[in-house]
Amino acid sequence: MNLITLPEQVTEAVRKVIGNGPIKLHEPSFTGNEIKYIEDCINSTYVSSVGKYVDQFEVELSKFTGANYAVSIVNGTAALHLALKLAGVENDDEVLVQAFTFVGSVNAISYCGAVPHFVDIEKENLGVDPVKLQDYLTEITAKLKRETTNKFTGRRIKALVVMHTFGHPSKMDELLEVSKKFNIKIIEDAAESIGSYYKDKHTGTLGQLGTLSFNGNKTITTGGGGAILTNNLELARRAKHLSTTAKVSHKWAFRHDEIGYNYRMPNINAALGCAQLEDLHLKLEKKEKLFNEYKFQFSKIEGVSIVEEPTDCKSNYWLQTIKLDLPNLALRNEILDDLNSAGFMSRPGWDLINTLKPYSHNPSMTLECAKELFSCIINIPSNFST
Amino acid sequence: MNLITLPEQVTEAVRKVIGNGPIKLHEPSFTGNEIKYIEDCINSTYVSSVGKYVDQFEVELSKFTGANYAVSIVNGTAALHLALKLAGVENDDEVLVQAFTFVGSVNAISYCGAVPHFVDIEKENLGVDPVKLQDYLTEITAKLKRETTNKFTGRRIKALVVMHTFGHPSKMDELLEVSKKFNIKIIEDAAESIGSYYKDKHTGTLGQLGTLSFNGNKTITTGGGGAILTNNLELARRAKHLSTTAKVSHKWAFRHDEIGYNYRMPNINAALGCAQLEDLHLKLEKKEKLFNEYKFQFSKIEGVSIVEEPTDCKSNYWLQTIKLDLPNLALRNEILDDLNSAGFMSRPGWDLINTLKPYSHNPSMTLECAKELFSCIINIPSNFST
Repeated sequence: MNLITLPEQVTEAVRKVIGNGPIKLHEPSFTGNEIKYIEDCINSTYVSSVGKYVDQFEVELSKFTGANYAVSIVNGTAALHLALKLAGVENDDEVLVQAFTFVGSVNAISYCGAVPHFVDIEKENLGVDPVKLQDYLTEITAKLKRETTNKFTGRRIKALVVMHTFGHPSKMDELLEVSKKFNIKIIEDAAESIGSYYKDKHTGTLGQLGTLSFNGNKTITTGGGGAILTNNLELARRAKHLSTTAKVSHKWAFRHDEIGYNYRMPNINAALGCAQLEDLHLKLEKKEKLFNEYKFQFSKIEGVSIVEEPTDCKSNYWLQTIKLDLPNLALRNEILDDLNSAGFMSRPGWDLINTLKPYSHNPSMTLECAKELFSCIINIPSNFST
Repeated sequence: MNLITLPEQVTEAVRKVIGNGPIKLHEPSFTGNEIKYIEDCINSTYVSSVGKYVDQFEVELSKFTGANYAVSIVNGTAALHLALKLAGVENDDEVLVQAFTFVGSVNAISYCGAVPHFVDIEKENLGVDPVKLQDYLTEITAKLKRETTNKFTGRRIKALVVMHTFGHPSKMDELLEVSKKFNIKIIEDAAESIGSYYKDKHTGTLGQLGTLSFNGNKTITTGGGGAILTNNLELARRAKHLSTTAKVSHKWAFRHDEIGYNYRMPNINAALGCAQLEDLHLKLEKKEKLFNEYKFQFSKIEGVSIVEEPTDCKSNYWLQTIKLDLPNLALRNEILDDLNSAGFMSRPGWDLINTLKPYSHNPSMTLECAKELFSCIINIPSNFST
């Protein structure tokens, strides 16, 4: 009587872990001082871009991640936009980025007037493949003085955005080596990976700059919010300056010395963030527990496995992810249908960004692995409540 | 014994109205359902860009302003950026804007890749001078098919940003006439003017698009926030689409058909906004009362007067403003020093944007009136508490 299909087995495994649905893919959890801090914030009247919670949030983020500086920003996309600017990305530069990512990360490159250039990922960590990257750059680049130029487009390749997909750290040592060789800056898109470590370092602290997101679907949330991490004092200062309309300090005059942005996180959102940060360790424990329960259930099913943290890394398990042994888009869709019909909100990986209309003519290496993973991957319910 | 100086007289007038300092220039006031709604929002777990408070805030804004549609945005600068895009502003266009404004309004033009082109204001409403504008455009433009081109730069002049300075409505009828004649779109920067009416219409609803700000220093606040107003359904739809990363609706896939933005206002900020909107009429009454008290005091002082709402207009009196009869930068600074030393936080008008480094080479008409007003104007404490 083993007539049960793979989709049915997957749905049953999820049910065994989290009980009956309906359940969302990811809900934030507010079990600490959230309301208390917000009430205090409102009573202080400092609800906007200046206030003690913004300061405290930055100090606590810096402590938690080990970055020398954290600058809180209105959201993760804005944080990445600003980080790219701080890394020196200019109009008509190219910026390397994986095609298997959230569109916001690629849009941030476009906001700089730069051209996203897509690279492939690898299966182990789901991040940029350093071996393919090195081979590709060797093939397509010329070194002009200290800069690396794409010899086919003539554009400078200024930076590489490294994402820690679903919370799993990318292969930073190898990527940093490639970036050094080609004199390309690394900006870490750690939007999904607060609480994830590459070896002993928090993600977002290994590149020149890193960015976090505190959107409602993240491990901790400020409603909308993000941050820039850096160990460089001058970059941190410039991040604050550019995110506060580049206003020059003066007792009353309105002088701005650059084209800046209105990118600071409001104090009221930071108040939420301070409370969320206090409970982050508990949230991470729950994520790991959930992973272990899923792992046990999926170990009994043939043809599918749960994605585990890479060697030498600690993942925050932001989104729990299962992977078909073999790429099969039809089967992936059947599983998605079965899960969602049963009330277990699940989603596939992102459509590869190079397949989206606004980015369909961008430069790209061949993306075998990304294409394969797109047909294999499903994110399953990842709440704290279980 | 009339040895008292003008700065001393001004400070004394302010003291008579608001008592002894210290007092800030403008503090938000939270006297309604702010904490209740935020608590409800957090308990719902919908703190991010989707939720009932975002929807409710948009409905209530639309009702209050009379605009057919209101789309809530992460802040006023982002709202203006998006409104300019929606009006069709493209890379290398020119956009007319007053030089006497907040830098964010000009930066929003730069974010489009367009070139801010500065125009003068007039003394009555403190807004763009329609007579000077018409003369200037007649002089510098050529009409190419249906488009207006700056014949000196060769660039298309696509739009005019009309600001309602300190809450005083600009001369909309005259400006709309000029814009029609030259086929230039008007976007109203109503960041400062919620509750201000030009004739019987709310500011921000007369141009093709209007924008509001709910920054902490505004009449009502969402911590950080803004909105786009329009009477055009298609523009409203596109505002929502572009502000939510241009994601195409699908049961699970991540498809985006344009380069979009992460520009929606989070639900938790909208919860604050819903409570603030409920009390807006009371806040506006307090603003008017404060104006009348200042008016009475300043009527007794020679050489300075308080700025009143223009004929046929209703101002929200966001920032109370006094004006020297004659331009005198040294005297203005003495008054500012005296006020601030006494604890009455006051500020001058903005440095003209064409005098700031990033905009010092931009095209500009002569700006006699703006320069004169810069040497005449002081904003004095404008709180609700008095």
